[in-house]
Amino acid sequence: MTMPEPKSKRDEIREAAARLFRDKGYAATSMRDLAGAVDIKASSLYNHFDSKEDILRQICFDNAQRFLAGLQEVENSADSATEKLRALIGLHIQIATEDLTSITAFNDEWRHLNEPYLSEFKTIRRDYERRFQSIIEDGMNKGELRSMDSHIATYTLFSSMRWLYDWYKSGKRISADELQRDISALLMNGLSV
Amino acid sequence: MTMPEPKSKRDEIREAAARLFRDKGYAATSMRDLAGAVDIKASSLYNHFDSKEDILRQICFDNAQRFLAGLQEVENSADSATEKLRALIGLHIQIATEDLTSITAFNDEWRHLNEPYLSEFKTIRRDYERRFQSIIEDGMNKGELRSMDSHIATYTLFSSMRWLYDWYKSGKRISADELQRDISALLMNGLSV
Repeated sequence: MTMPEPKSKRDEIREAAARLFRDKGYAATSMRDLAGAVDIKASSLYNHFDSKEDILRQICFDNAQRFLAGLQEVENSADSATEKLRALIGLHIQIATEDLTSITAFNDEWRHLNEPYLSEFKTIRRDYERRFQSIIEDGMNKGELRSMDSHIATYTLFSSMRWLYDWYKSGKRISADELQRDISALLMNGLSV
Repeated sequence: MTMPEPKSKRDEIREAAARLFRDKGYAATSMRDLAGAVDIKASSLYNHFDSKEDILRQICFDNAQRFLAGLQEVENSADSATEKLRALIGLHIQIATEDLTSITAFNDEWRHLNEPYLSEFKTIRRDYERRFQSIIEDGMNKGELRSMDSHIATYTLFSSMRWLYDWYKSGKRISADELQRDISALLMNGLSV
């Protein structure tokens, strides 16, 4: 009999949970479904996570952290606003194509977080959106980017990359590199002066 | 006692249903909820619609019809591919801003249609997507539009306008005209050579 590996079982549970949340929705997923998916007893799940919401929380905050870390790095660079924006578009596509299951659960299911986590999550999200928008505004003010309503530009950009979550899982006919190149070209050209 | 007006009660039920489907989701909405929302007996709903799914079906197919009619008109015009694409972007924004509740229910809840309607709906949707993509390809072939993967271009465009469904209901700080102008500029400039 070998010793269990708590760390790797934990990851396995998290991945299975993300898949179930994505396919059935968080509300319709039970701890029993999850136990079945990773082939352990439902009661044993609680050795790894406090609750279903605990798993969702980790999925949501870990992904938020990836976006924030990427944004922080971009903000700290000495690049032009145009280059910063290009890097951020790349960040969104990279995160979407690397771990699609987790990012879909993050995007669609965060509303099920309990307080105070829900409020905390929304604050992080608004902060991210505001800082992203600031980079666009900076580019417009410096005359690097086409002048338009910066709110419209920001949300059109966010939204334009979201089809990847619905689509990329099934197709994959197109490589991540091609997505990077074409989506980035469309959006950056769209905002250029 | 006045005579009931079946047509207008019917519209009222449909609008209330679209609102409930959007806010609670189709699955979580009961005929009882709907009866409460329009202040009639649940049993009287059946004078107007056969079932909850009958209402969803009408919302889905009527909206699909609006998109198809718009597309047909654009296809029949003698405009350049660029102008056709601009008109189609305008069509999406117009439909989204005119009847947001109905379009959100259409977009998020069509998966709940029963067969054979589900298959029929998917066929119409694929047809719409293919014809939209053909216009983009035509523009690329004629050198009017920047050459890139036409699938990526099509879905980035569709997706880029979807934030309106989540956002426009709450904000409305920005007029439909401004949305038309800025989103259209961003996307058309993005695809221009």
